[in-house]
Amino acid sequence: MKNNQIEEFKQATITKIDQCLDEYLASLESYTILKDAMCYSVDAGGKRLRSFLILAICQTFKGKYSDLDLQVASSLELIHTYSLIHDDLPEMDNDDLRRGKPTNHKVYGQAMAVLAGDGLLTTAFEWLSRLELDPVIQVKLIHALSKAAGPEGMVNGQVGDIQGEQHQLTLAQLQRVHRGKTGALIQYACYAGGLLSNVSAEHQDALKQFGTQFGLAFQIYDDILDVVGTEAELGKKVHKDQAENKNTYPRLLGLEGAQKELRHSVQLMRESLAVLHQDGIDISLLADFLNYFKIKDKA
Amino acid sequence: MKNNQIEEFKQATITKIDQCLDEYLASLESYTILKDAMCYSVDAGGKRLRSFLILAICQTFKGKYSDLDLQVASSLELIHTYSLIHDDLPEMDNDDLRRGKPTNHKVYGQAMAVLAGDGLLTTAFEWLSRLELDPVIQVKLIHALSKAAGPEGMVNGQVGDIQGEQHQLTLAQLQRVHRGKTGALIQYACYAGGLLSNVSAEHQDALKQFGTQFGLAFQIYDDILDVVGTEAELGKKVHKDQAENKNTYPRLLGLEGAQKELRHSVQLMRESLAVLHQDGIDISLLADFLNYFKIKDKA
Repeated sequence: MKNNQIEEFKQATITKIDQCLDEYLASLESYTILKDAMCYSVDAGGKRLRSFLILAICQTFKGKYSDLDLQVASSLELIHTYSLIHDDLPEMDNDDLRRGKPTNHKVYGQAMAVLAGDGLLTTAFEWLSRLELDPVIQVKLIHALSKAAGPEGMVNGQVGDIQGEQHQLTLAQLQRVHRGKTGALIQYACYAGGLLSNVSAEHQDALKQFGTQFGLAFQIYDDILDVVGTEAELGKKVHKDQAENKNTYPRLLGLEGAQKELRHSVQLMRESLAVLHQDGIDISLLADFLNYFKIKDKA
Repeated sequence: MKNNQIEEFKQATITKIDQCLDEYLASLESYTILKDAMCYSVDAGGKRLRSFLILAICQTFKGKYSDLDLQVASSLELIHTYSLIHDDLPEMDNDDLRRGKPTNHKVYGQAMAVLAGDGLLTTAFEWLSRLELDPVIQVKLIHALSKAAGPEGMVNGQVGDIQGEQHQLTLAQLQRVHRGKTGALIQYACYAGGLLSNVSAEHQDALKQFGTQFGLAFQIYDDILDVVGTEAELGKKVHKDQAENKNTYPRLLGLEGAQKELRHSVQLMRESLAVLHQDGIDISLLADFLNYFKIKDKA
């Protein structure tokens, strides 16, 4: 794909994901206030990075994605959104602003924010389990998603993050936190995309490596942005990590060391794509994810 | 089954559920503090009413229950426990005591209580999806559970409960709240038990009616106990509903009216069991659930 085609595909796909999410949420028979609270955060204009990754993989391997692929992909945004709502709670990261808008509990109150998160988390599995997929594939997806999102994945990472505020972590410990907190859902996206595209074991391995390094790079980049970014650029408060004594790559390795670590992960992402490229696969859509990491040199 | 056999079966089964839960939770690769927080509430000595109901149905229709049945049943306790942890949070019901012990957030702090709840909720689906069941049955169970627990079920009921604090509900509105808050998981238990036992459509209907009325009766009884019970008997604070201006059956119908409503639901439970009895099924284990409702006459 050429650059302008990639951009078109991306915009069209994100629009479809947004529509798919709206349709699904509109179909729920819930109290209006609960639906509003869930929709508020789902519609808060995220990049749909995780769901788009699933569909980019389908497009890469199958040359298209089906409506079922779209629904599987969209359901992942419910999990991601729930995690943001709960992370923003006063007892957690205590954030008032998310993507430039007041956080869920600031608008709907703390009780409703807990319940909106619970609702989104649960209903992701409802959505996945109601699709007319091959039940064997369906169970695999549900298992991988629950593993990635749960107490061995994302929830564990969040616990590690909170725990880490009390003492300095080693690099290995920090990586464990991040593998859970950010890496697990991105890895799931790679796995799901590969499964829906029925790829070979070798290609599934390459996607796994891509996802693992993507997750790490994503978190390192986020840490770096908190140091060098501005509130206007990011739509959220910056320099929070240092103020809250968070364990971050820049704190552990210095800004330069963190940037080096980021470049290393991006390099490994490139290498995993090379495996696919060697087999004649057009990797341009996946290579475009590397552009996410625009390393700034100013401190 | 005779009364002493029922009692033996109940004790043996609850012990197995407890063991099954402990083994599953012990197998998780999570931070110790997260595992501790999850286990604390799972092990807090509940009656295992919902999971036992699944196994009582299996025993009733198949004359036994398998290890897989046991695991499906036990996974339901994770959902029930998560709901208690989140309901007890300061922003929700703000309870310090549960089953005579400090609530989860009182011991582990509010952030960990949110995460322990999130972890238990997610991992219930992980557990169900990793079992070696027929994938068609597995998807049906996951779908029914997520529907029962989510924003059209239990989470919705909890929202209705909070909303209702601000104005008096009608009986129909209160029943909607309770169908979600308490009824949905009990109905799921009846559905799951029937599905695992491969019962006829007619018997599945009878179980559904049993579950619906059981859920209603359960909540009415809980409301009544809050009026006539003592903290020592119940292991939690009483007279909270009135203090918090909660919508309850006694508030709406008076204590006598609530007791009449309870007797009505119990009668409908009896009638649904009569359908099974007519087909030569030994209903003694299920009829024993009626003993749960010991209607006190003192106010």
